[in-house]
Amino acid sequence: MSLMLEEIRQQPEALRRTIESESGKIARLGTFLKERDLRLIVLVARGSSDNAALYGRYLFETTAGIPVSLAAPSVFTLYDAKLRLDNALVIGVSQSGEGEDINVVLERAKSAGAFTVGITNEPASTMAALVDEALVMQGGKERSVAATKTFTGQMLMFSMLAEALRESGEPIDFTRVPDDVAGALASDDAIRGMVERYVFMDQCVVVGRGLVYACAYEMALKLMETCYVVAERFSTADFFHGPLAIVERHFPTFIFAPPGRTTDGTKQLLERLRDLRADTVVITGDDALTGFTPRTVKLSSEIDERLAAISYIVPGQLFAAHLAAAKGLDPDAPRSLTKVTRTL
Amino acid sequence: MSLMLEEIRQQPEALRRTIESESGKIARLGTFLKERDLRLIVLVARGSSDNAALYGRYLFETTAGIPVSLAAPSVFTLYDAKLRLDNALVIGVSQSGEGEDINVVLERAKSAGAFTVGITNEPASTMAALVDEALVMQGGKERSVAATKTFTGQMLMFSMLAEALRESGEPIDFTRVPDDVAGALASDDAIRGMVERYVFMDQCVVVGRGLVYACAYEMALKLMETCYVVAERFSTADFFHGPLAIVERHFPTFIFAPPGRTTDGTKQLLERLRDLRADTVVITGDDALTGFTPRTVKLSSEIDERLAAISYIVPGQLFAAHLAAAKGLDPDAPRSLTKVTRTL
Repeated sequence: MSLMLEEIRQQPEALRRTIESESGKIARLGTFLKERDLRLIVLVARGSSDNAALYGRYLFETTAGIPVSLAAPSVFTLYDAKLRLDNALVIGVSQSGEGEDINVVLERAKSAGAFTVGITNEPASTMAALVDEALVMQGGKERSVAATKTFTGQMLMFSMLAEALRESGEPIDFTRVPDDVAGALASDDAIRGMVERYVFMDQCVVVGRGLVYACAYEMALKLMETCYVVAERFSTADFFHGPLAIVERHFPTFIFAPPGRTTDGTKQLLERLRDLRADTVVITGDDALTGFTPRTVKLSSEIDERLAAISYIVPGQLFAAHLAAAKGLDPDAPRSLTKVTRTL
Repeated sequence: MSLMLEEIRQQPEALRRTIESESGKIARLGTFLKERDLRLIVLVARGSSDNAALYGRYLFETTAGIPVSLAAPSVFTLYDAKLRLDNALVIGVSQSGEGEDINVVLERAKSAGAFTVGITNEPASTMAALVDEALVMQGGKERSVAATKTFTGQMLMFSMLAEALRESGEPIDFTRVPDDVAGALASDDAIRGMVERYVFMDQCVVVGRGLVYACAYEMALKLMETCYVVAERFSTADFFHGPLAIVERHFPTFIFAPPGRTTDGTKQLLERLRDLRADTVVITGDDALTGFTPRTVKLSSEIDERLAAISYIVPGQLFAAHLAAAKGLDPDAPRSLTKVTRTL
């Protein structure tokens, strides 16, 4: 079994340990930050961590009401910009804590007066040392090059922090996450059977909107890294603005479709894809969204919409891991890649 | 000749007319906005307009020092979030001025206390009526479904507004843009010859970083819309974080590489792509970046780095228009698409 698959299966336990270890600290951090008159949250990350930040973006804006900017590190590292960041919370996300450009942005933000937080797997990392507060995942070392348990761990951190900063809506019960993820892992056998159909797929589109937009980015990245599939990723809305033209009969599309506010838009997309005779896989817990394609990965209908991304990505991870195996590839050692990427 | 190609060639004149018509108004707007203690700029758009906003993002942050958030419209339209937007400038971009979700965001922002600006081609549009200040492009109606002259017009507007808000660095001489774009149009014949090689290409990667990241997004969108090529788009840095794994011998890659701060990173990428034996096209005005591939589109070395995106996209537009023609497709009427897309 690949390390990737092993680490995918460790997720419920990894998430549980992170909640135990970090929830008290994050609640206190929220109380402290709420007194600081935050006007902006800046998230800075690369790769899978950046996809987790995309989830954080929607979650913070919808629950805390604070505008979020996903940082472009080169604004600092190449163009040497001095941004006004007083009253900003700047959160860096890096599995290793050694992403150089991420750390440069955090340093600059700190000296511009921002409060800085680091989300990392490595308590002894450069990032953990430089930020005002380090949030450390407790999932054990990630050995596969393809990030899986650190990705869901990062999303969990965002959900805990969003709850700590929440200004409106129902409380977010992030303690349900490990069980929800364990439930999503039950799709393992179904997905192992399904990937056979896609062994010779060389391109596809992955779609998700709003709080699961991050899943589209992350599944596409996993397919690129471990299966060498050219995988486009779009929100439902952006997809209709042009890229839909690439879809023809049999074109493979993967759709993340939790029950909730995105249901109507997803339904419209599924109807369109059915008319175009695309080859569609739907990952959903919504009975209204089954029946459009013979290939549905069914998840629980009980998952909180705000936490859905953390469970919904699991079938996407499993799909990539099983597809890599079916293609005879080693998902733990993608060609051309290493675990820590250095860019400035 | 396609409308698309016709409109690509109208760009120098369209840009010149927009400068004549709007530069006084934008300078006055800048003076007014500088007195408002702006803490955040939010850009909201879809499709090509969103790609123009991506250019605006880098430009505002690097010249005005104000953090920029690229809005996720669904935060407002689906999740009904109430964001704190006092002291924010919110800029909507829509060719037609009728993008419903864009207009919803502008309305919400206005009632939350933001100052709103609309960039559009249609002075009688819903957007123009609802914003505090409408900036109207004077390039004449765009008839092709694939946006070209409105895209460079939108980028020009951002450069004029960035100059009006500039806090540091040399003045931005946006009046050079029409001539720079006319110079880029001289690549027409070379590109018409080059596309023959790519008639049977069905996937590719387009890369650009920082101020030309927007060009990567826009050329990829044009290739998807008009040539049905599955075109991935990445920044140089993100590309190294995983997606590089999809590149193998002969894999087609297109690189936007103006002289300037991105040169070192681009050189590193070009060396890597040469080692991987990718099939690379470079669009550059930088002598240090030629010689890595037999296929270089050479632009002037004199273009201001901050304005480069507006000229550099021109070879990308020409490539898509000529490739569509070479494939026997009509770039003015892409399958599945209409000019105004309605999403909420």
